[in-house]
Amino acid sequence: MITSENKIRVRYDEVDKMGYVYHGNYAKYYHISRTELLRKVRISDKELENYNIILPVIEMTIKYLKPVFYDDVITIKTTIKELPTSRMEFFHKVFNQNHEIINVASSTLIFVNSNTRKPMRVPEIILNKLKSYIKTLN
Amino acid sequence: MITSENKIRVRYDEVDKMGYVYHGNYAKYYHISRTELLRKVRISDKELENYNIILPVIEMTIKYLKPVFYDDVITIKTTIKELPTSRMEFFHKVFNQNHEIINVASSTLIFVNSNTRKPMRVPEIILNKLKSYIKTLN
Amino acid sequence: MITSENKIRVRYDEVDKMGYVYHGNYAKYYHISRTELLRKVRISDKELENYNIILPVIEMTIKYLKPVFYDDVITIKTTIKELPTSRMEFFHKVFNQNHEIINVASSTLIFVNSNTRKPMRVPEIILNKLKSYIKTLN
Amino acid sequence: MITSENKIRVRYDEVDKMGYVYHGNYAKYYHISRTELLRKVRISDKELENYNIILPVIEMTIKYLKPVFYDDVITIKTTIKELPTSRMEFFHKVFNQNHEIINVASSTLIFVNSNTRKPMRVPEIILNKLKSYIKTLN
Repeated sequence: MITSENKIRVRYDEVDKMGYVYHGNYAKYYHISRTELLRKVRISDKELENYNIILPVIEMTIKYLKPVFYDDVITIKTTIKELPTSRMEFFHKVFNQNHEIINVASSTLIFVNSNTRKPMRVPEIILNKLKSYIKTLN
Repeated sequence: MITSENKIRVRYDEVDKMGYVYHGNYAKYYHISRTELLRKVRISDKELENYNIILPVIEMTIKYLKPVFYDDVITIKTTIKELPTSRMEFFHKVFNQNHEIINVASSTLIFVNSNTRKPMRVPEIILNKLKSYIKTLN
Repeated sequence: MITSENKIRVRYDEVDKMGYVYHGNYAKYYHISRTELLRKVRISDKELENYNIILPVIEMTIKYLKPVFYDDVITIKTTIKELPTSRMEFFHKVFNQNHEIINVASSTLIFVNSNTRKPMRVPEIILNKLKSYIKTLN
Repeated sequence: MITSENKIRVRYDEVDKMGYVYHGNYAKYYHISRTELLRKVRISDKELENYNIILPVIEMTIKYLKPVFYDDVITIKTTIKELPTSRMEFFHKVFNQNHEIINVASSTLIFVNSNTRKPMRVPEIILNKLKSYIKTLN
């Protein structure tokens, strides 16, 4: 439905003794990719903050298929398949420079009021921006 | 079957703008807890290295239930339910100081020869240590 | 004048491709050690927060003398030599398990009001706790 | 003498509770900037590896002047002022989007044979590439 793609060069501090990107670091890459997808849809983190909306992650699944190495440039493809209601689900695929798939993951976020720290349904501002963006695709 | 429990104090650099432990940091906590479980069973990382065995993570699932805050001391309970064959699966539960459950996760590792970088079945040395440990429990 | 000592076991994610603790990670170790020194003196981060005091680092120098390896237990010795005025300076020495010195560092913090984000002189509450602690030493 | 400039967008996981880039994270930014300077001079990490040369950091000094915030794009300007002999010294200046200076730092690296783990004088291959690059500047 909505897809975003971005590239990241693997940093030295992200690679472990085995010479692989440390498995825990992919969560950061997915996060960057979610942020870029939302930026594309014109939902900026700073704006969310002004509306007192925070988006904590409540679920994540990762399947690691191949390792990635220092200084490699990976491509992260992130997709939202459905409009969110009380949750927003993102699907991630990471590719290496040879277009091989590295890992597949999903991450689920909820909408929380930053003052009350209580979950809420998807804020209108987010829903409208997603819908507006989808219209531009047709 | 085999359970290990360890405590970690949340570090300042592990907490994000929301004041919560950054969701990507739990992978490190699970890793520490796996290492401590293996240490208890007398499988040391350094020994594995001498046998040219590395244990990359190939799958991880996490459900985040509650946030944890800076300087909190969390308890991580890690369990192996079955003897490994070509994979070793760990189950993790994290608790805060009030004994509330914070998140539940699983992580699956495979056995790889560090020279060939090829997967292998569970090495005898690992299997024997797990079995020996289980015997001491009865 | 005031000295604190604490131990940290090196985590897997903190070690780089060379097999050494990544040089950027020592800042986190010094931070933990400063927190433990302040805890000993009964200055808790959470209390500082209630007083709207934050302590950003404004200067850091590090000399790396020897590498440290995965799973090593290091000892960090942190010292305050003088009572703070507008700055608080900490001196750090890190040792490995063989009591060899690994690196020496200093870190300088200032006192900032978390609401105004303006620097201030050392808050009385901090100064008094430092003085009280010093008295107990004599 | 040789200067390189690169931009980095601050990631969510790099920001602390105060809303500032965690002070320990700048070491990673300097590292990226050194790598980009060396890449410009056609010294690649991967090539160094083939020559069994590693470049550990042995000294770092940082003065933090202003905070940087989440999602800001910073510019890191890194300079080598002198050809290396047994050490290579880099000077770093970080600027925010308003061209204000954020921090100034220096980092010193040595040349180590990755097999023997012994320090060496600057390898010819590095020195020649630096000299060739400087020629192109005139």
